[in-house]
Amino acid sequence: MRDAEIRAAALEEFVRRGYEAATMGDIGAAVGMRGPSLYKHVSSKQDLLASLMHATMTALLHDHDTAVSGVADPVERLRRAVDAHVRFHARHRREAFVGNRELRSLLEPHRSVILGLRDTYEQRFRSLIAEGAELGAFRVADPQLASYAILDLGMGVAVWFREDAGPSENEVAWAQVEFALRLVGATGP
Amino acid sequence: MRDAEIRAAALEEFVRRGYEAATMGDIGAAVGMRGPSLYKHVSSKQDLLASLMHATMTALLHDHDTAVSGVADPVERLRRAVDAHVRFHARHRREAFVGNRELRSLLEPHRSVILGLRDTYEQRFRSLIAEGAELGAFRVADPQLASYAILDLGMGVAVWFREDAGPSENEVAWAQVEFALRLVGATGP
Repeated sequence: MRDAEIRAAALEEFVRRGYEAATMGDIGAAVGMRGPSLYKHVSSKQDLLASLMHATMTALLHDHDTAVSGVADPVERLRRAVDAHVRFHARHRREAFVGNRELRSLLEPHRSVILGLRDTYEQRFRSLIAEGAELGAFRVADPQLASYAILDLGMGVAVWFREDAGPSENEVAWAQVEFALRLVGATGP
Repeated sequence: MRDAEIRAAALEEFVRRGYEAATMGDIGAAVGMRGPSLYKHVSSKQDLLASLMHATMTALLHDHDTAVSGVADPVERLRRAVDAHVRFHARHRREAFVGNRELRSLLEPHRSVILGLRDTYEQRFRSLIAEGAELGAFRVADPQLASYAILDLGMGVAVWFREDAGPSENEVAWAQVEFALRLVGATGP
């Protein structure tokens, strides 16, 4: 409970000031805790950053796996994977922002773990696209570049999407699914 | 000459530590200048950030206008616009990184100017796509979402492209042009 509050306050500070400029004092102040009691919950600012990034990547992988579970048709698999990817980024914009912006501040051993999870996530898309291409459902010259492009589309959503203006989450998700299917040259059902 | 060195040092610090954590002292130290002589060249860290972002957007707009100048066919216009967009982001990754990450630290009056230039750039793509759709060269339901998607593809390149590994700038540019044409449902020449 307290841990979740502290992580939320840390996310807020990392978004607002950036990881380097944020201080444990500010994070503690935001949840009404002083040094000693704060350090009973978290050992360092670095651990908070790692914990936030780990939670983000785990949730993203979980959403992906749930989305494609039991679906064999590659077009439908990609449709669902992109839908999950885009909605996650529309709903967790601050987590995505910090995850991308503060990677450079993440030190070992955390860094390798997070880069590994990011690589795993990208591989899911790459395999999905490569398998679809082999089955003749997609026309893709380079599955890696195609997976990067599709992931970048969703990460862009985290930058510009607003709940209170512009197209709705549904409209954005539907458009992005269509873009992704076009991008891989899906022959469609 | 000195101004260019100072801007380069500021860019370096903003990338490495983030705008909030970077100090004028660090920037001065990087070019071997102390406070008073540094302040003869630049009035503040905020002005340095604004100047960097302004230069980036001006160069991007210039590249775009050069790319499409005198070209009427919408497919060829989009092809060139995406080529210029992607190559710019492959070559100016740090400028793109700071431009996107530090927008939140940019204050008025600079903020409105930079947001205006970003909007102008996005409008170029949106108009190009809308005109192509009207001429029947593209099939696009929402030119704004399509322009966002194409711009996001290029901005993603700034994150993952490396000169020394993976696909070359040419390979990336060609792939992205193909993706963009597919994304707008280009009927092709």
